[in-house]
Amino acid sequence: MTGRASANIPKSLRDLWKHQDEHGRQSTPDNMSSAKAIVSHDTHANGGWKLEDVTVRKPGDGELLVEMVATGVCHTDALIGGIPDGASPVAFYPRVLGHEGSGYVKEVASNVTVAKVGDPVLLSYAFCNNCPACKSNGHSHCPDFTELNFTKNAASPIFTPSQGGDENSIHGAFFGQSSFASLSIVRACSVVNAKDLIKSKEDLQLFAPLGCGIQTGAGTVINAAKATKDDIVCIMGLGGVGLSAIMAAKIQGSRIIIGVDRVQSRLELAKELGATHIVDGSALREGQSLTDAIKALSEDLGPTVVIDTTGAPPLIQAGFDSARNKGRVIQVGSSPFDFNMSINMFAFMMRGVTFSGAIEGQAYPPEFVPKMVQWYRDGKFPVDKLVKFMAVDQFEQALEEMHSGKTIKPILTY
Amino acid sequence: MTGRASANIPKSLRDLWKHQDEHGRQSTPDNMSSAKAIVSHDTHANGGWKLEDVTVRKPGDGELLVEMVATGVCHTDALIGGIPDGASPVAFYPRVLGHEGSGYVKEVASNVTVAKVGDPVLLSYAFCNNCPACKSNGHSHCPDFTELNFTKNAASPIFTPSQGGDENSIHGAFFGQSSFASLSIVRACSVVNAKDLIKSKEDLQLFAPLGCGIQTGAGTVINAAKATKDDIVCIMGLGGVGLSAIMAAKIQGSRIIIGVDRVQSRLELAKELGATHIVDGSALREGQSLTDAIKALSEDLGPTVVIDTTGAPPLIQAGFDSARNKGRVIQVGSSPFDFNMSINMFAFMMRGVTFSGAIEGQAYPPEFVPKMVQWYRDGKFPVDKLVKFMAVDQFEQALEEMHSGKTIKPILTY
Repeated sequence: MTGRASANIPKSLRDLWKHQDEHGRQSTPDNMSSAKAIVSHDTHANGGWKLEDVTVRKPGDGELLVEMVATGVCHTDALIGGIPDGASPVAFYPRVLGHEGSGYVKEVASNVTVAKVGDPVLLSYAFCNNCPACKSNGHSHCPDFTELNFTKNAASPIFTPSQGGDENSIHGAFFGQSSFASLSIVRACSVVNAKDLIKSKEDLQLFAPLGCGIQTGAGTVINAAKATKDDIVCIMGLGGVGLSAIMAAKIQGSRIIIGVDRVQSRLELAKELGATHIVDGSALREGQSLTDAIKALSEDLGPTVVIDTTGAPPLIQAGFDSARNKGRVIQVGSSPFDFNMSINMFAFMMRGVTFSGAIEGQAYPPEFVPKMVQWYRDGKFPVDKLVKFMAVDQFEQALEEMHSGKTIKPILTY
Repeated sequence: MTGRASANIPKSLRDLWKHQDEHGRQSTPDNMSSAKAIVSHDTHANGGWKLEDVTVRKPGDGELLVEMVATGVCHTDALIGGIPDGASPVAFYPRVLGHEGSGYVKEVASNVTVAKVGDPVLLSYAFCNNCPACKSNGHSHCPDFTELNFTKNAASPIFTPSQGGDENSIHGAFFGQSSFASLSIVRACSVVNAKDLIKSKEDLQLFAPLGCGIQTGAGTVINAAKATKDDIVCIMGLGGVGLSAIMAAKIQGSRIIIGVDRVQSRLELAKELGATHIVDGSALREGQSLTDAIKALSEDLGPTVVIDTTGAPPLIQAGFDSARNKGRVIQVGSSPFDFNMSINMFAFMMRGVTFSGAIEGQAYPPEFVPKMVQWYRDGKFPVDKLVKFMAVDQFEQALEEMHSGKTIKPILTY
């Protein structure tokens, strides 16, 4: 323990450590904590992801040590952890991914006011909180977003292999949290204090993905599209983000809500959650394009709001083409980094369509996460229908089920 | 005269005709009126535009006969009248262009309630007034906008060559008005009644361009960008549209207003009208891009609002690149019909920039034109500084001075 942190250690923290010991965990050196982590040594495709024992360094200035109880698994984990080492500034190994964590605070370092030791926390993305974007409630489009959430610069080495290896050689701070570890160092900006939000550890596990995938879907509908009851909302792709968008469109009372996917179970769930119409992209009528099918369900003029959660270029294009004049088209799914969309500028101008991208639903987590929890309590936002709990050692299966569409939102529990 | 129109002819119209005769105009057959018109027989580059004597048919259902006192000249006249016959659905000859007309109503046909005979009118674009776009105040993005304002379908034959030639062989209804004629048939939807707005014929002449170029610039800032005092507004191109945008940004109190052009006199006028900074694209520092120069004037983060009025692909790109994260980029200038802009989708999504096009400043003329007139009366919208009055037979010179930048907004008077 560093002198300062040691001097500040409160009784509650000592109790927490004692509590941990009662559960039979390994004792560790005073300046390290033992943990299990999914360490990405290389891309997932290369078999580079392994559940391993690690030790975690102490939190530094502006950081917290959080004992995770759960983490959602998101396509962004697979996306980033699928890029070969060095092929992009965001691709480096070894590291711990995961960015939909929830847990209890075990230790706070200096300059942390968001939570105290023992507080339950829901984790979200990192932002600088100091730029004009952050100061005008645009945190998710902070110009340092990529730097802070993805790059090696911000990914201070946090974890040490227990089996031997260089101290602090494994990078963390993915989205300021690296929640694929039972114990991790979290940046204060990534923390939403859930003390007044949750009733139990089970709540905390269920709400783990609120701070990324679910907020991205719901926030895009509410904050970015500002959908109302007058809107016809079309959601391309019905994974966790897309289905959260469907639920949010229903909360907003949008008069027509169209879900587009090609997995039958997802289409059915979309209807259950609020979609008034669905389009099965794998079962279009002879000669009918996806754009035609969407327009046919939206007064032949197209939706007033189109949100692409897939990132797949043909779907992005079909959604863009289907939007009504003066409609809003919002890109949410991560497309291939080298995908350039070609837009005829004159036609675009005539249509008056507003095209934008939205990160994290343009939500400020300390405000938006509590809203989502309240909607859940009110029965309007049944996130429990999207999730499947799996032990952390089932992470390979979780990834597989997420990719196949069998599971919408896997939550790994510790 | 058709039976119906003849039966309905009011005394005031007869008085008007009498009045016209007092001014020594030619007498014409009862079902035709004599006029001077700039007839486009072919592209302007091919020398196809000629000032000629024509006769004008009677107005039909939903139409008015308007005696023009003035018409602005706009780049869109040159654009459309520069396309070879048949190269586009909007290119056909012979026709009468002009779409910034003002004048007095001489006759109204059935189903016209917007104005009475003798009323002064300011003319604007045509729209269907019946679709969801029109019904939600989105008239300028009416899906039939192109059809109604540009195509042959809507351009009912209106004019007959006085020197002989087929009856009604010259198309009109450009923007529902074809104001390059001293007397023209105007669609009711294109009419703003100026009875309560103007004090004199000189007013009516000065305000002729409000309904297109000036409303496009001002409306884009106010209706589309919704610029406020917190915004940094950058206007690419300082013609009539761009300078109107500058004036509007000043009315909105935007804290930094940047004007970009390469014509010194326009840059100086921009400063006089409200630009706090200017960028002379012809005098960039060695190694400095236009994007760099704009960012340097906007806190190194870029403007929060960028409006391109040029339609020139390199300028569109430079403006797009310069916008701040979460900024609004709005395309207003007509780009070449075949210009496709390539946008890296991932980077676009991360920036959260909102990209859109705006037609006619997304203004509903019956509401927006009176606002502009009031701003002028209040000394906040000195449109008189943009215009140069020229007799209609000087139209070639007007076009030349508009293209060179010597004159911002030529107004041809009848």
